[in-house]
Amino acid sequence: MLRDGETKEQRVTEAGPPTLPARADHTAIRRNNLELTLRRLALTPGLSRADLASGTGLTRATVTRLVAELIELGLVREGTVSSLRRVGRPGTPLSIDGRHVLAIGLEVNVDYIAILVTDLGGREVLRDECEFDCVSAGPDGSVRAAIDLCHRAIRRVRNRRHDRQPVIVGVAAAIAGLVDSRGGVVIEAPNLEWRDYPFGAVLHHGLRLDGAPVRVGNDANFAALAEFRTGAWAGTADLIYVAGEVGIGGGIISGGRPLLGTRGFGGEVGHIRVDPAGPRCHCGRRGCWEALIGLSAVLRSAGISTPSGTHPRTMLETLVRRGHDGDQRALDAFERLGRDVGVGAAMLGNIFDPSVIILGGYFVALEEWVLPRARRELMKGMLGSRDPTPDLSVSGLGFTAAARGAALHAMDAVLSDPATLLASPLQ
Amino acid sequence: MLRDGETKEQRVTEAGPPTLPARADHTAIRRNNLELTLRRLALTPGLSRADLASGTGLTRATVTRLVAELIELGLVREGTVSSLRRVGRPGTPLSIDGRHVLAIGLEVNVDYIAILVTDLGGREVLRDECEFDCVSAGPDGSVRAAIDLCHRAIRRVRNRRHDRQPVIVGVAAAIAGLVDSRGGVVIEAPNLEWRDYPFGAVLHHGLRLDGAPVRVGNDANFAALAEFRTGAWAGTADLIYVAGEVGIGGGIISGGRPLLGTRGFGGEVGHIRVDPAGPRCHCGRRGCWEALIGLSAVLRSAGISTPSGTHPRTMLETLVRRGHDGDQRALDAFERLGRDVGVGAAMLGNIFDPSVIILGGYFVALEEWVLPRARRELMKGMLGSRDPTPDLSVSGLGFTAAARGAALHAMDAVLSDPATLLASPLQ
Repeated sequence: MLRDGETKEQRVTEAGPPTLPARADHTAIRRNNLELTLRRLALTPGLSRADLASGTGLTRATVTRLVAELIELGLVREGTVSSLRRVGRPGTPLSIDGRHVLAIGLEVNVDYIAILVTDLGGREVLRDECEFDCVSAGPDGSVRAAIDLCHRAIRRVRNRRHDRQPVIVGVAAAIAGLVDSRGGVVIEAPNLEWRDYPFGAVLHHGLRLDGAPVRVGNDANFAALAEFRTGAWAGTADLIYVAGEVGIGGGIISGGRPLLGTRGFGGEVGHIRVDPAGPRCHCGRRGCWEALIGLSAVLRSAGISTPSGTHPRTMLETLVRRGHDGDQRALDAFERLGRDVGVGAAMLGNIFDPSVIILGGYFVALEEWVLPRARRELMKGMLGSRDPTPDLSVSGLGFTAAARGAALHAMDAVLSDPATLLASPLQ
Repeated sequence: MLRDGETKEQRVTEAGPPTLPARADHTAIRRNNLELTLRRLALTPGLSRADLASGTGLTRATVTRLVAELIELGLVREGTVSSLRRVGRPGTPLSIDGRHVLAIGLEVNVDYIAILVTDLGGREVLRDECEFDCVSAGPDGSVRAAIDLCHRAIRRVRNRRHDRQPVIVGVAAAIAGLVDSRGGVVIEAPNLEWRDYPFGAVLHHGLRLDGAPVRVGNDANFAALAEFRTGAWAGTADLIYVAGEVGIGGGIISGGRPLLGTRGFGGEVGHIRVDPAGPRCHCGRRGCWEALIGLSAVLRSAGISTPSGTHPRTMLETLVRRGHDGDQRALDAFERLGRDVGVGAAMLGNIFDPSVIILGGYFVALEEWVLPRARRELMKGMLGSRDPTPDLSVSGLGFTAAARGAALHAMDAVLSDPATLLASPLQ
């Protein structure tokens, strides 16, 4: 229980989460330690064996053995010792190598398909994008286009010089809609107009990458993961990502973990009710956040009509130009948008107590007009608001956030269990 | 990576959460295994050593050694072997003992203070309650009353016969308001009319239980924990508890862990905006969920006035009687209440994708009038609603949910690190 000399401040603390611990037999320990070593190096490249030992609490001998295994497999490499690095005998800096261990992240959206390939260290290896009308093509046509894009990317990667033949260890696809991530089924994607489509299974079958499990998830959930892992707020345990597209998606990191919910539907923030007297939402109700701050709503509110057959995103440039031209109707629309963004953000702020709410997608282009007003409204709406309210900002990851998060997600399974990489040959 | 013979269904899966694993040295392993053993027994009393070994993956020898240590310390005990229990040589059933290892849960509310003491196995040892006007008494007076109640409870427990002298290993207090749980400070408790009060430090100082750390948290967060651990939905990884008092509190379990947020303010669901044209909320805005479904609002809506100096909860009986008498104004109020409960529940349902939303506090007394209407509204409001929507139900834990959750929370620190119990004498 309690040690003498503990101060009151130490005692008045919050206990950790009550979860059932995993068993700790020796296979599990080894796997855990491999994971620990790889993740430390992924977070902080350049650590020496001694740094790893002191940072992880493992013995120096254990770290030396683990690192030797990882180097042998090409997953970790030694750098050059810099004598300037520190006082005393410098350790050899280590970093994740695994440049041949690749994961594919896809984003299948209304009018384009994007791909982003990362290596084991989370470095971007390749990105590609094609315009594609996924609504007209339907899910079967879209998955075929996604497969073509994957095969093109794999060919390009393989044609580059490599000491080791690259190997794809996982694929994940980000879809704007409700996705049952356990079965890889798109349950309902209103803007894509898809329902009940076994996207994961069809993609897996068509890719014919037997070594690569295929995962499917919600686009905003993956974008939130990308922010958590590589964005400007990387490592922030409680953050919310709001994806501004035709609709409004949301992805939530809570306590350092993605909030997925029972079926993987968690994070659907587009239908919080901001104004019941507001415009009708495609979901059938009135005044949903999405019906007020989705891109289509804002274009309408600014008096910009979208020619039939044109995707609203192509009109974003027009909207921005009108803002720069000082067009009053656009500026009024931005004012209302800022207010409604802030009102909804305050609801999320009170419910989740996050450190930051990050606006992605089209919001990034409207930052200068929308953010100041939205921040004021957020502050007004927060309880206990003498404290710093959550930060409200825009994403720096651009439109690739979802594909990047998907690739990181696909690679996570490998980082979480590197022993499987050790157990099976990579080539 | 992937083993031959894996099916497609196996591959299309969701990876686990990406968190940095803890180090696994031998002290940590021993502690982890002790925790594992204790938690298994807490969840399933009556397991034998062989059951524990097969259930945890630990070797039989390790389990035997751990159990011997735990029995020696009085934390686990052996039961009587029943020859009817199973085929073959029956194992001795084990269960958590630790009847002398106690945690205190307090709830300090507007018009009463409640205490609930549990033992290491989570069994209720004692409960007590006193009516107390915490608003008039202010925080200093209330903490003194709480200390008196604790000392009375400790005397009563000590006066009972025990083989071992009982020892208090932790105290937690549940407060209806925003609590900075790291520092034990009540930041803002509108219904108590307290602000910035160092409740944890004052309680710890006054209790003079040096071996017992004092924790402070939000009442609904603790009630959610009680539901997760001992309620009708125990073990449900994604659940939401909505506390119906004068105000509306919320506690959220997400992925099997309490959602606390950056400062411990997480779960404040009372201020989602259900109707901006609705009544003014004490927070200054209009149409917050709390302003529509808080007990004060419902009493007003049913035409029941609360005499000055009377707490609204004392009028609940009148409200229920009017319902049974078929009073039209009460029935109309219940109809609106059911609708507004359902509208807000649907917002939470979409954001969190929980398995169940549990209504506690005064809602329990109005179940028959409110629940059917609220369920219809919830179903209407859910996206992807062909799937089973979250269940919506009332709590079976009654008004002690928060104190019970607080006691479980206080005990959690001990279960999470039983090695500290082994390292220091209990008496």
